[in-house]
Amino acid sequence: MTRFDLNILGCGSATSTLRHLPSCQVVNVRDNLFMLDCGEGAQLEIRRSRLKFSRLNHIFISHLHGDHCFGLPGLLSTLALLGKTGTVTVHTFADGAQLFASWMDYFCRERPFDLQFHIIGNTHETVFENDSVTITSFPLRHRIPCVGFRIDEKPKLRHINPEALQLHNVPRAAINSLRKGLDYVTPEGLVIPNDTLTTPADRARSYAYCSDTTPSDRVAAAVEGVDWLYHEATYGNECQPQAHHRYHSTAHEAAIIARDAGVKNLIIGHFSSRYADETVLLNEAREVFPSTILANEQLHIDLNTDLTRPSAYH
Amino acid sequence: MTRFDLNILGCGSATSTLRHLPSCQVVNVRDNLFMLDCGEGAQLEIRRSRLKFSRLNHIFISHLHGDHCFGLPGLLSTLALLGKTGTVTVHTFADGAQLFASWMDYFCRERPFDLQFHIIGNTHETVFENDSVTITSFPLRHRIPCVGFRIDEKPKLRHINPEALQLHNVPRAAINSLRKGLDYVTPEGLVIPNDTLTTPADRARSYAYCSDTTPSDRVAAAVEGVDWLYHEATYGNECQPQAHHRYHSTAHEAAIIARDAGVKNLIIGHFSSRYADETVLLNEAREVFPSTILANEQLHIDLNTDLTRPSAYH
Repeated sequence: MTRFDLNILGCGSATSTLRHLPSCQVVNVRDNLFMLDCGEGAQLEIRRSRLKFSRLNHIFISHLHGDHCFGLPGLLSTLALLGKTGTVTVHTFADGAQLFASWMDYFCRERPFDLQFHIIGNTHETVFENDSVTITSFPLRHRIPCVGFRIDEKPKLRHINPEALQLHNVPRAAINSLRKGLDYVTPEGLVIPNDTLTTPADRARSYAYCSDTTPSDRVAAAVEGVDWLYHEATYGNECQPQAHHRYHSTAHEAAIIARDAGVKNLIIGHFSSRYADETVLLNEAREVFPSTILANEQLHIDLNTDLTRPSAYH
Repeated sequence: MTRFDLNILGCGSATSTLRHLPSCQVVNVRDNLFMLDCGEGAQLEIRRSRLKFSRLNHIFISHLHGDHCFGLPGLLSTLALLGKTGTVTVHTFADGAQLFASWMDYFCRERPFDLQFHIIGNTHETVFENDSVTITSFPLRHRIPCVGFRIDEKPKLRHINPEALQLHNVPRAAINSLRKGLDYVTPEGLVIPNDTLTTPADRARSYAYCSDTTPSDRVAAAVEGVDWLYHEATYGNECQPQAHHRYHSTAHEAAIIARDAGVKNLIIGHFSSRYADETVLLNEAREVFPSTILANEQLHIDLNTDLTRPSAYH
C-alpha cells in the first residue's frame, strides 16, 4: 500500500498549556504533505516529526481563530529561509488571505517560492484535486465560519497479473485499459474477462478533519464512511452546557458522530486545558464508539490501520 | 536587594531549530515584567518559566523581523483568554503597530485589557519610565531599523539607621529628606551629617539588550557601564564576512563591545542554526571578555550577580 498517514502536530484548544500545542496536523499522501490548520509552533513540530518542508505545498485553514493559524507566518518564513521553491498554496477564507498576505508581504517579501492564496467558502465543495486525492471542505457549526476537510483517495487502478497476460498473449498496449477494469478482446474477437487478467485495486482510503464544531448531523453526513475521522472533543460530559455554549463537542458527542457516520476509526482532540489527563474523554467516547484513540503531539498514524482489526495497530 | 533578573525565553536566530527558540526575554524588576522581543513560542516559554502573565504589561519589539515578533498575536490572545485586565503596551515602530493592531482587531477583538501601541523611533530616547526604572532605546546597526533597549534602575534612597536617629533625637518627619541624602539640622541649628544617620543606598542596576546588530562604537557608547549586557553573537570567527554581510556580529566582536563599553558581564545569544554546540562561541568571546556566559532557553539570571566575583554566581 502506498503511504497515507497522519501526523498530529498539535491537538490542544485555544488556551495554551505545556501539555498540548494548538491545532495542526499533516496528512502524508504518497509523500505529498497536506497541512490542516497551522497553530503557533507548527514549524517546530514539523522539524520534530522529521517531515520534509520540501514536500509541503498545501496548507488548509479551517477557520480564523488564532489557535488554528498563528503558526502560519513563522512556517512560511522558515520555508523561505530554507530556499523552498515551487508554489505554496494556503487555502483559507477571504479574510484570512488578506490578513496573512499583509504580514507575509511585509515580513517575508522575498520568497523563493510562489505564495498563493486559494479563497474558499464556508461551503461543501472540492477545494483541491490532483491525480491521487480529492480534498473537500464542508461546513462545521462553530461560533464563526468554519469548515472541516475530507481527503479521499481517488479510485485506484487494478493490478495486472503478468502470468495471466502471458498465458493469454495480451499485448502491453492493453495494460492501461485492463488496469481501469475493461475486459480484453483478442484480435479474433474473443472476450477475456478483466478479472482473469487482473487482481482488485487497492482500496481508496479516506480521512476527515473536524477542527472546531458543535455536534451536527450535517457534519456526520459529510464524513460518512471515512476510514479515520478526527473530531474535536474539547470537553467531557460534565461540561456539556459549556461545550454547546462555545460551539464545541463533548467526547461522547464526537463518538456519536463517528457511529452515525459509519466511520471506521475515530481520533479525538482539541482538548480543553482543564484536562490534565484525557483518559476520561477517551473512556466516554469508547462507551459509544470503541475504535477511538486520543490525539497527541507527534502521534503518527498509518491510516491503513484499522482499529477494528486489533492486531493491525500497535 | 530587590528583584532584578533576566529570563531568557528564546536565543536562536531566524532559522528555527529544535535547539533554540526565536528571540524573547523577560526582565523582572520588582515583579514588574518587561518583555524584550516576542518570537514565536514566547507564550509557552512564559508558562514553562512560571513567570506570571498578570505581571506583564510592557512588551518592547526591537525590530520587525519575524523571529522577533511572531509570538505576539498568540501571547496577546492568551492574555485575553486568561482575563488579564489593565493596560498592555507594545512599544514598537509605526509599521509594527499597524500590523499587530490589524491582526489583534480581527483575531482578538474582545479584550479584557486595554491594548496600547506606543510608537517608538529608530532613535536614542526614553521609551518608558516609572518610579523604579527608565528604559531607553538606542539604534543598532542592522539590515532594517532596529533598536536595543537599556533598562536603568533609578537612583535608590539611602537606608535609615534607626539607632542613630534615636541617639540624635531625629523626628520621623525628617526621614524622607535623610533618605535622599540631605543632612539633618536640629532645632538648635546643629548640623548632623547625613552619613551619621544613614547607610548608602543599594546600587542602581542596569541591563542592556542588543538583539541584532553588526558591531558599532555607537552601540558600545549606548550600553556603557551596564551591569549585564546581552549582545547578539550569531556567528563565530570563521563566519565573519557572512556576519557583516547580514549585519550581525561574531562572538569575538560582541566581547570587544562589552570590553569597550566597560560593562561588567556579557551574555551572548541569537545563535546561528549552524552551531550544534555554542562552546566555540563562548571560548572566542572569553578570550577578549572573560565574564561571558551563553544564553539558553529558560536560563534565569539574577542580575545582582557579578561574574567578576566568581563566588557570587553558581
